[in-house]
Amino acid sequence: MKARVHIMLKNGVLDPQGEAVRHALGTLGFDGVEGVRQGKVIELDLADGTSEETVKQMCEKLLANTVIESYAIEMA
Amino acid sequence: MKARVHIMLKNGVLDPQGEAVRHALGTLGFDGVEGVRQGKVIELDLADGTSEETVKQMCEKLLANTVIESYAIEMA
Repeated sequence: MKARVHIMLKNGVLDPQGEAVRHALGTLGFDGVEGVRQGKVIELDLADGTSEETVKQMCEKLLANTVIESYAIEMA
Repeated sequence: MKARVHIMLKNGVLDPQGEAVRHALGTLGFDGVEGVRQGKVIELDLADGTSEETVKQMCEKLLANTVIESYAIEMA
């Protein structure tokens, strides 16, 4: 089974990578880009029967820095 | 309007970051993690009426390295 975890910086946390992308898009002539946030996506290939709770523990312990990042889990 | 772009390394391209995560999860005692791929997610806040075609051009020109990365666009 597969799980996908999205990890984004929390609102209010400065995102210099996203800001750099926003600026670069403007330089390339793409108008109307009002904001960009960059995050991570982690695709996990898991043994069958792994629970969402286990994936949550992986996020809390390793995948996300919960001080500044929020995460969302999609099981598939 | 918002658009979300997922950028993943293509299949067959070595993903050392994902491999490091897989190894670290094993060390932490999470069994059954068979594979991990790490990618990027970019959330764009766009002017209303921006087409998916425009976002595709952003991906081709800046956001993704299409030699080794594939991308998927979700408009919302």
